[in-house]
Amino acid sequence: MTCDFLALAQPGVQKLSPYVPGKPVDELARELGLDPAGIVKLASNENPLGPSPKALQAIAAEFSELTRYPDGNGFALKSLLAERCGVQVSQVTLGNGSNDILELVARAYLAPGLNAVFSEHAFAVYPIATQAVGAAAKVVPAKEYGHDLEAMLAAIDAQTRVVFIANPNNPTGTWFGPQTLANFLARVPEQVLVVLDEAYIEYAEGEELPDGLDYLAAHANLLVSRTFSKAYGLAALRVGYGISSAQIADVLNRVRQPFNVNSLALAAACAAFDDADYLAESRRVNAAGMAQLEAGFRQLGLSWIASKANFIAVDLGQPGLPIYQALLGEGVIVRPVTNYGMPNYLRVSIGLPEENARFLAALGKVLAA
Amino acid sequence: MTCDFLALAQPGVQKLSPYVPGKPVDELARELGLDPAGIVKLASNENPLGPSPKALQAIAAEFSELTRYPDGNGFALKSLLAERCGVQVSQVTLGNGSNDILELVARAYLAPGLNAVFSEHAFAVYPIATQAVGAAAKVVPAKEYGHDLEAMLAAIDAQTRVVFIANPNNPTGTWFGPQTLANFLARVPEQVLVVLDEAYIEYAEGEELPDGLDYLAAHANLLVSRTFSKAYGLAALRVGYGISSAQIADVLNRVRQPFNVNSLALAAACAAFDDADYLAESRRVNAAGMAQLEAGFRQLGLSWIASKANFIAVDLGQPGLPIYQALLGEGVIVRPVTNYGMPNYLRVSIGLPEENARFLAALGKVLAA
Repeated sequence: MTCDFLALAQPGVQKLSPYVPGKPVDELARELGLDPAGIVKLASNENPLGPSPKALQAIAAEFSELTRYPDGNGFALKSLLAERCGVQVSQVTLGNGSNDILELVARAYLAPGLNAVFSEHAFAVYPIATQAVGAAAKVVPAKEYGHDLEAMLAAIDAQTRVVFIANPNNPTGTWFGPQTLANFLARVPEQVLVVLDEAYIEYAEGEELPDGLDYLAAHANLLVSRTFSKAYGLAALRVGYGISSAQIADVLNRVRQPFNVNSLALAAACAAFDDADYLAESRRVNAAGMAQLEAGFRQLGLSWIASKANFIAVDLGQPGLPIYQALLGEGVIVRPVTNYGMPNYLRVSIGLPEENARFLAALGKVLAA
Repeated sequence: MTCDFLALAQPGVQKLSPYVPGKPVDELARELGLDPAGIVKLASNENPLGPSPKALQAIAAEFSELTRYPDGNGFALKSLLAERCGVQVSQVTLGNGSNDILELVARAYLAPGLNAVFSEHAFAVYPIATQAVGAAAKVVPAKEYGHDLEAMLAAIDAQTRVVFIANPNNPTGTWFGPQTLANFLARVPEQVLVVLDEAYIEYAEGEELPDGLDYLAAHANLLVSRTFSKAYGLAALRVGYGISSAQIADVLNRVRQPFNVNSLALAAACAAFDDADYLAESRRVNAAGMAQLEAGFRQLGLSWIASKANFIAVDLGQPGLPIYQALLGEGVIVRPVTNYGMPNYLRVSIGLPEENARFLAALGKVLAA
């Protein structure tokens, strides 16, 4: 007889349900015996353009250094981010994706007896990171699928240490404006860390969304997290960052793994950050694809949630899981969001024009069947 | 006046001293105005051969997939590891370096009120990971710089949940044999997880060290951790793994970040694992370099700790930090180990013949000065 190492795990860990990622193309190909090249994946909000050539060059230039540990301090990338974000290097925390940043916050500031506040229909990593450290989650009902910031303020209590908000929000694509953010920040108690998750902000630039960095100087309890996985096209490499007060960054840098971001990610992120053409093209393709999907949904008589991100949640008016399954059979992978409390929706990432067309045709076929 | 976000951090986190990595070549070059190409770094137990060409090919083959998230389940690498290690895929946990595996264990099984047992002069990540989750460290005095496994057994109490042991040990290079491990495992209480850190085991293969995997079937409380950062030459990419019971692996896989290992690391690790020539050459160069350094130390009248790893701790008979500093001035980076309780030692990684010679000449010069 052996010991029960599930029962020996920390209580929060025992109850963890792992994050459910978008189905990888190779996995679907294996399961259905399909050619991976014929599969369209619009499930993980990935950049459909393929990588920036400048990022690839930067990676190749690092090849001879593969046996060396990364620069654990991320000197080059942190310097570049600090310069462009108008902050000090000491205010930057690098992460193995922004997922790492969210987790570092939870591990530094949450524990049993404390809680985090976040919205219904918010990114699945907020509850996972909260649960993993044994803290409580206070989930605030959404308002028309977006954050109800007033209700979130009201939910903050003496045990609240962190509030996670996302702008735009995943998986809904909803957003809030500058005045709404300013009002919110002005009223959050100063000991509560506000994590403003801007993973998709580059798609909304120039729109009516606030730039979180503008609020850092006035709010010592604000951390803005961003990622290279979306508009910068580096999801494979895992690199994200947090900008906050130097004190919060110091705490997070103590908690992070010494070499949390790999060398190729550091190099590629520097190059991608400097590739303005790639970013502009990412945004152009995204705007065109969004319009294409909206037109397709209209034609199919479907409604959707207006989105400022690189995905759109479509309302099928019927359970989404069977439709998701049927789309898999057509070689099209999208994301069911039942686990986000949206059983009648599917979340569809914006692809290239031909990928969007493949998806719309498959959806039309499946819905007609 | 703003809030104190250090005081708001978890007590264990507040007391964390970050890991001190080997000084990066670029950093020394910046500080001293030196040409990076002229600097010899023997500070981080990196593979001096440069990367496996097969690993580079595998990375290049992934270039088109850079915008895609990694396979969070690591299907290909886990399948390969399971096959070669003679275990089920369900027994494998992949990590962002084996550092990640060590941390996952701490986060899953340690907490305030519990403790971890490890040896004096052991890897700095054991105390950091333990401290970060607020658990206590029971540090057991070493015996001739190696683990005193009898004393470690005696240190285990009702609050002990994890024992970290390393074979060979870093930074001492010491080791223990199969009978010693068997006796230890037979007497560790079954509810205490034994983490056998074999980061350097490939250098000791065929020597008198046990293969930790041989003990898994009989000990449900054993986890063997290994890395691709040393003998496989992929430190830049961050990939390591743990092999354990399926139950422990299930718990660790719940705690890990969904995409903790990046795509290029997954691909390169598969290729490196299959490159038997590279591994053989790594071991050959290491054995020759070890002999070269030992001969050099003998000539300088210095003693050292016998090592089965890819580094060697040399006894200077005087404080090591000033010698370390003087070696930096010569463009040679090694590792001071004062923070490992070994103030009179320096840890030197085995380099290429010319790197070892550069180091020995610089050391002779510095000691004569």
